[in-house]
Amino acid sequence: MNQNAFWNLSYGVYIITVWDGERPTGCTANCVMQITAEPPTIAVSINHDNYTNQCINKTGRFAISILAYNSDPSIIGTFGFQSGKLVNKFDMVRFEKLGEMPIVKDGCAYITCEVINKMETDTHTVFLGKVLDADVLSNEEPITYSYYHKVLKGKSPKNAPTYIADDKKEDKDIKQESEKYICSICKYEYTGDIPFEELPEDYKCPICGQPKSVFKKKE
Amino acid sequence: MNQNAFWNLSYGVYIITVWDGERPTGCTANCVMQITAEPPTIAVSINHDNYTNQCINKTGRFAISILAYNSDPSIIGTFGFQSGKLVNKFDMVRFEKLGEMPIVKDGCAYITCEVINKMETDTHTVFLGKVLDADVLSNEEPITYSYYHKVLKGKSPKNAPTYIADDKKEDKDIKQESEKYICSICKYEYTGDIPFEELPEDYKCPICGQPKSVFKKKE
Repeated sequence: MNQNAFWNLSYGVYIITVWDGERPTGCTANCVMQITAEPPTIAVSINHDNYTNQCINKTGRFAISILAYNSDPSIIGTFGFQSGKLVNKFDMVRFEKLGEMPIVKDGCAYITCEVINKMETDTHTVFLGKVLDADVLSNEEPITYSYYHKVLKGKSPKNAPTYIADDKKEDKDIKQESEKYICSICKYEYTGDIPFEELPEDYKCPICGQPKSVFKKKE
Repeated sequence: MNQNAFWNLSYGVYIITVWDGERPTGCTANCVMQITAEPPTIAVSINHDNYTNQCINKTGRFAISILAYNSDPSIIGTFGFQSGKLVNKFDMVRFEKLGEMPIVKDGCAYITCEVINKMETDTHTVFLGKVLDADVLSNEEPITYSYYHKVLKGKSPKNAPTYIADDKKEDKDIKQESEKYICSICKYEYTGDIPFEELPEDYKCPICGQPKSVFKKKE
């Protein structure tokens, strides 16, 4: 089996959000798809270990914020590489509360859902949501997961369905170069033309917004 | 609710195939996503009315062929706008039989699956498949559903989750022009610069491959 085939599946990049009773929380996801047209239903897949999963199970609701090419890419890292149990991910992100769900204002569209069914797997729950409300927020093109990976060089969080441990990857094109630097928070690999050491001290990881100091040389 | 928000969800374009006992069959789908990484599982959503749904239920297996930008777009129409009960969709398409499943050779990758769970909805079954085998067939970029719609002007078959009847669409940008021509088989709308009447007589629908004569003036 060549797992690289899975990288040919196309996805968008979404923030799945929920109100935990006291405050908004959520996580980054790529696995979202419409299932039925009448009534409209949407399926999302969320890892059991994600705090968002517990909150969706408790409240029976979730919202999908669809990120666009002009959305701040640090949102992906903020929601993808930290636990909502430990940090308030919405501290840095503009949102609106709608039907007891937080909507990320920096997306191009949103969909709010009520859970009507679910399917359990070893590691993920597939929630089936009946759409309560939906709207377009801007005319920007939705960002694709492929663009996030290939152009922004984003990585999959450990809990993502698409995560493959680095030592299992079969990509023979990866060049082993000693001077590569990696963000220790989100695993973003700096690949710019300017040598990493020469970047300004206020350089920030384009994915998770962490400072230059958290980058480590790739071994 | 503004259903245009759903058009911001990103998908690829896939041919979901199965062996019906006697011959290969399948249908076009856009709703495919990886659910778990270890073991790898994939979910696909197929309308109850599709013959492919019956065959997957019977055999407990399905294959996903991932279409690329260089795949012949008529494959999408061949598999999306006809019933596999009535026609042998593989008559015109190169394929290979693998683990009792047909693989479309004109795709950039394939994944074969054994059904391990399913979730029923009003109109669609979400099949959860454990991956049996997968491989990359070419280095071509996978085609996105958005490209199929916006550039190839492809339509959703009536059984697709993303199908919306034309009279329900809220798109206010659609211009009503009297000289538009539409393929009566797959609903592709000709939008080229050359007036439709002046196209050569051997012009074929770029989506389903049908001749110029099946096009009708848009009312």
